[in-house]
Amino acid sequence: MSEHKLTLVGTGPGDPDLITIKGVKALEQADVVLYDALVSPELLRFAPCAEHIPVGKRAGKASLSQETINSLIVDKALNKGHVVRLKGGDPFVFGRGFEELQYAEQHGIDTEVVIGISSIMLPGLYGIPLTCRGVNQGFSILTATSADGSVSGEVGKAAKTASTALIFMGLSKLDEVVTHYLNEGRGDLPVAIISNGSLAEAQVIAGTVNSIVDEARDQKPTSPALLIFGEGAAYAGRTNYQTIKKAEVI
Amino acid sequence: MSEHKLTLVGTGPGDPDLITIKGVKALEQADVVLYDALVSPELLRFAPCAEHIPVGKRAGKASLSQETINSLIVDKALNKGHVVRLKGGDPFVFGRGFEELQYAEQHGIDTEVVIGISSIMLPGLYGIPLTCRGVNQGFSILTATSADGSVSGEVGKAAKTASTALIFMGLSKLDEVVTHYLNEGRGDLPVAIISNGSLAEAQVIAGTVNSIVDEARDQKPTSPALLIFGEGAAYAGRTNYQTIKKAEVI
Repeated sequence: MSEHKLTLVGTGPGDPDLITIKGVKALEQADVVLYDALVSPELLRFAPCAEHIPVGKRAGKASLSQETINSLIVDKALNKGHVVRLKGGDPFVFGRGFEELQYAEQHGIDTEVVIGISSIMLPGLYGIPLTCRGVNQGFSILTATSADGSVSGEVGKAAKTASTALIFMGLSKLDEVVTHYLNEGRGDLPVAIISNGSLAEAQVIAGTVNSIVDEARDQKPTSPALLIFGEGAAYAGRTNYQTIKKAEVI
Repeated sequence: MSEHKLTLVGTGPGDPDLITIKGVKALEQADVVLYDALVSPELLRFAPCAEHIPVGKRAGKASLSQETINSLIVDKALNKGHVVRLKGGDPFVFGRGFEELQYAEQHGIDTEVVIGISSIMLPGLYGIPLTCRGVNQGFSILTATSADGSVSGEVGKAAKTASTALIFMGLSKLDEVVTHYLNEGRGDLPVAIISNGSLAEAQVIAGTVNSIVDEARDQKPTSPALLIFGEGAAYAGRTNYQTIKKAEVI
């Protein structure tokens, strides 16, 4: 048995080739691998002899509670050795990586982090610049939903600024997010939805605040999806390098 | 000669093991590699037979102009085949990836993008959560400096909101950024500076709006550096998993 250790690895937005070399090296030294539903099972090939445990959390449907996952990490680290915890995207952008690390550390387990590509990077993949010279010089990242299930107050604030807003977990709240922007008179602002970004089944829907609800109703994007409200969204699908088929950009 | 092609690859914040598998695969098929000053030369080992061209831009000291880089990409793609352009971080977060792609496409060259880990992910590596439950639910990314060299107006707006602010290219403007936060009566807000994040020589300086200018004067962090203004900065160095030595967290 190797040392008692937890390594938290961000595996990127979906495409298994978007894991880092450092993440692969961690997997090669794993005794146990815990992985989320959004993590490609293909990555398990780097740890063929390790125990593989799905702890699938997806869009609020938790198959294991966070408390159970925390306990499992500690139990496996103490009894099996090196636990590698694979998380979709980056472990810290709206993930609960810190809670898992703190819990493990409180139980005397060494921890290490391998950062990953967050879904924040996906707009670039589909030709959407997050900043436009002369229009905005920054962007904001927020979740659509507060801990209590209501639309976050941050959405209303974002609608009032020139910064591009990247909204996570917002597909089911699209109507309400759009209402905030309409209330600010920004019906013509470009909007894009990236669904299953970086995967073969990726879907990019482009429109404006005025049109995006109808377009989403027609095109039926699925979770996980990222909403982009900002001038850069007008460029979605205008370049020829995205990996999705042209026809899928609406 | 292979096809005329440009692949833009984000190599991550500095640690060469933070490149993706997809980035390595692109390098293995390169005829020419163009790389920035912030890209680790170790990565060139994946393209041993390709032509290697440094186009080193660093902290405003451009050794080649953007126009020259654009021309070089097109010339090499037309005459040598597959050009892989390595960029530090992610190609689109304050990089000029879109300009290079558009220029190449205008000259009939196929393009592809391999997204990378932006420095936005570095706070997680050093124990700094970007969002704190109950305090803030989002964060903002901005540059300290406008195109005209003055401190960006976005900094003043960020100082007025609860969101954590991640400020790029801000080390030389630290005094002025701090003044914006002091003007909002936020002297006690935690602040951290991450210098050379992910590298062995990484340095993390933690303090508050009131103290950070003095601490930076004492500790002399160097570029590239990321400024973090937000409650999460108080956690810098409190976990045991960061790769820097404890003594380097001030």
